[in-house]
Amino acid sequence: LDSINAKSLHTKSERTCSIDRGKHKAVCKIAILGFGTVGSAVARILAEHAPDHLRLIHICNRDVNRKKVDWIPPQVQWTERFNDVLSSDADVIVELIGGLQPAEDWIRCALLAGKSVVTANKQVIADCGPELLNLAKQRNCRLAFGAAVAGGVPVISAIQDGLAGDEISKICGILNGTCNYILSEMGDSGATFTTALVEAQKRGYAEADPREDIDGLDARAKLAILARIGLHAKVCTTRIFCRAISAIEPVDFEFAKQLGCTIRQVSTAELNKGVLFAAVQPALVALSSPFGLARGSQNIVVCTGKFGGETTFQGLGAGGNPTAVAVVSDILAMAANTNVSSNGVSPSHDISPRVSNDFVTSHYVRFSTSHTMRAVSALVKALETSKINVGSVLANRSRSSKFSAVTVQACTPSALQKALKQGRPSDIFQFYRIIPILN
Amino acid sequence: LDSINAKSLHTKSERTCSIDRGKHKAVCKIAILGFGTVGSAVARILAEHAPDHLRLIHICNRDVNRKKVDWIPPQVQWTERFNDVLSSDADVIVELIGGLQPAEDWIRCALLAGKSVVTANKQVIADCGPELLNLAKQRNCRLAFGAAVAGGVPVISAIQDGLAGDEISKICGILNGTCNYILSEMGDSGATFTTALVEAQKRGYAEADPREDIDGLDARAKLAILARIGLHAKVCTTRIFCRAISAIEPVDFEFAKQLGCTIRQVSTAELNKGVLFAAVQPALVALSSPFGLARGSQNIVVCTGKFGGETTFQGLGAGGNPTAVAVVSDILAMAANTNVSSNGVSPSHDISPRVSNDFVTSHYVRFSTSHTMRAVSALVKALETSKINVGSVLANRSRSSKFSAVTVQACTPSALQKALKQGRPSDIFQFYRIIPILN
Repeated sequence: LDSINAKSLHTKSERTCSIDRGKHKAVCKIAILGFGTVGSAVARILAEHAPDHLRLIHICNRDVNRKKVDWIPPQVQWTERFNDVLSSDADVIVELIGGLQPAEDWIRCALLAGKSVVTANKQVIADCGPELLNLAKQRNCRLAFGAAVAGGVPVISAIQDGLAGDEISKICGILNGTCNYILSEMGDSGATFTTALVEAQKRGYAEADPREDIDGLDARAKLAILARIGLHAKVCTTRIFCRAISAIEPVDFEFAKQLGCTIRQVSTAELNKGVLFAAVQPALVALSSPFGLARGSQNIVVCTGKFGGETTFQGLGAGGNPTAVAVVSDILAMAANTNVSSNGVSPSHDISPRVSNDFVTSHYVRFSTSHTMRAVSALVKALETSKINVGSVLANRSRSSKFSAVTVQACTPSALQKALKQGRPSDIFQFYRIIPILN
Repeated sequence: LDSINAKSLHTKSERTCSIDRGKHKAVCKIAILGFGTVGSAVARILAEHAPDHLRLIHICNRDVNRKKVDWIPPQVQWTERFNDVLSSDADVIVELIGGLQPAEDWIRCALLAGKSVVTANKQVIADCGPELLNLAKQRNCRLAFGAAVAGGVPVISAIQDGLAGDEISKICGILNGTCNYILSEMGDSGATFTTALVEAQKRGYAEADPREDIDGLDARAKLAILARIGLHAKVCTTRIFCRAISAIEPVDFEFAKQLGCTIRQVSTAELNKGVLFAAVQPALVALSSPFGLARGSQNIVVCTGKFGGETTFQGLGAGGNPTAVAVVSDILAMAANTNVSSNGVSPSHDISPRVSNDFVTSHYVRFSTSHTMRAVSALVKALETSKINVGSVLANRSRSSKFSAVTVQACTPSALQKALKQGRPSDIFQFYRIIPILN
């Protein structure tokens, strides 16, 4: 099977290398920065499965002797110094060290030196993608970042090529595998957030310091990239609203179930009348929807277009091999001179909309009280005063529980919060939690 | 919003036209053959939403006076003669007349004249795609067919670009919106096949002569294209096994429901040890799976890769606007000189595997009998003799019904059929129906 499927990659070798345009099967020399999970998966595909004209020549990593493996061809040079790579004759530099620095500087140096760059670095692309793309254009080289969003799910190329003929108005997705693992565990087993997090850490789905994932910052960077390529909206990542999933408790899953729902970290960006509505937050989603069915490290992206309607992309959003597929696909496109990513985002045409998280949607409101009946009637009254319609009052199935919940019909979270603050008898509610319900 | 989103298309205009490479924003002149549902949707996007450098110059259709509409710019020439288009200065000819002839001849003539072609014609591409791609290469022009499979779902470009770095071993999907509409109607409402077909015809989801769809020939052509671009397997469409969905009765949905399943027309192509297992047939799929949840004209394609695992693409597989998105995306890629479709399939590297429909899978066997207990025990005995394990015996919920059903564990359909033929006491079974269960 391998020998047959190797042709899958080999077919692409027919294309000519961007670096040496015109010559058939010109060799494309590749250097990898960072030999971690993704870096080693990329190296293995290049070493064992890629066509001959893709040639790995350098691997750069700290403490390189600790990293060396025997399956890398002997002619590949191992180094700890980025300058060795920069001064080499590599055509494409693959940046897989992650984080803002030194990754950003190294990408800039590589482009300045006229070397094309493939990166999986969502933070660098979210923060300075347009600037780096301009630099690549000036230096007549390329920058591709298909692996920066949704791992192996080819959503960047799909938006830039396959849906190029549509006018996308909304992008909604599950973009963080760690949160999805934790929330699907909580939903399936009834575990608390902390238990699910510890389990995720044990299994390697969550970092020792999981805040980037849990707080939504990882998904936010990916959403900013999607907003730019799909909606052509320039948005500073820090302006996108984030709410951590750590606020979710098992009781929320119980209430959600009564509504035929579960809870996922959902990232949404929608352009409406010149305003970009964007947020990364836990949300109630239908159990039987693609979002509700997504388990573990699955990612989903749903694009809504004026002509094509909803188009959904789903698959493994994390892990060495799936992410490596995206990286190698970008390298192949570069070698074939068909890469689009470097042209797709034209910063001069992007708009800079106002960013808001004040979506109109229905909401779930959960609160703790020791006087359920009084609290619910006070709440309903407060909402009615503010002309917010209550959808349903959810039954508290455990008598000892101090939690109650209601759903409210379409309104903005700001209006809902205002109504709750104004009408809340503080002696009844200890606190409340608002979660949007997304369909 | 339109003025903002128009930039989505406009961004792409930054790329240079393939026809006039090097000049920035060179004009790309477009002629459309066929002004039906898809043709007019493409024309509308080009007329009202596309960047200036995409210029519609010709529309060719029979009885053209009947077709003329006022929203087409006056400088566009209407004609009934293909030769007018061929002798024009069109750079890209968009073939949307469908069917094998004259579409195939016209595409060949256009390529011979050095004009690039965008087509939504699954039959022509399934039958002579590689030959036409070679011709395009020889004449230094391009051929793109992103709209030939799954309408607006960009699965062709996703496989050729986004998943280029993977080795795909299996492609499975719902590729025919008509069958999906009929089967989802039958599942939801309990309607018979004929009732659901008539309803589909009334609503425009099925042709007056629906055999191409119902019998699986439409999906088969699309599957042959996917097998070639994804699995690099040359396969003559007529060698792909098809079973019509007209054999499905409401009772099959009732039994399927007991298994947590529904029924969909599923197209599968899998390379295993040099054999291409391929079939288009009704199959039991889990109610809560993406296939089970697909309604109406939705299409789904699931690609299984060695490195990236399962990646799912889903959206509207039919209709003027979604299909037009795929066509316009191909035109934009051509105008940008980034088109991959014309390079992606390199016939010289394709394999020509043996084609078989003898998949190992579990099956559902439904039969009619007036002696349920005797029939079931005879059936179980016949299967046991052939070492095929019975999974479950399904309860016949209506006493008056003459139908019974069992499931059998993983085996080939040929082994199952042999066992049933050998062990079937003809006085008990009037007939039986076998449907694979796909997970």
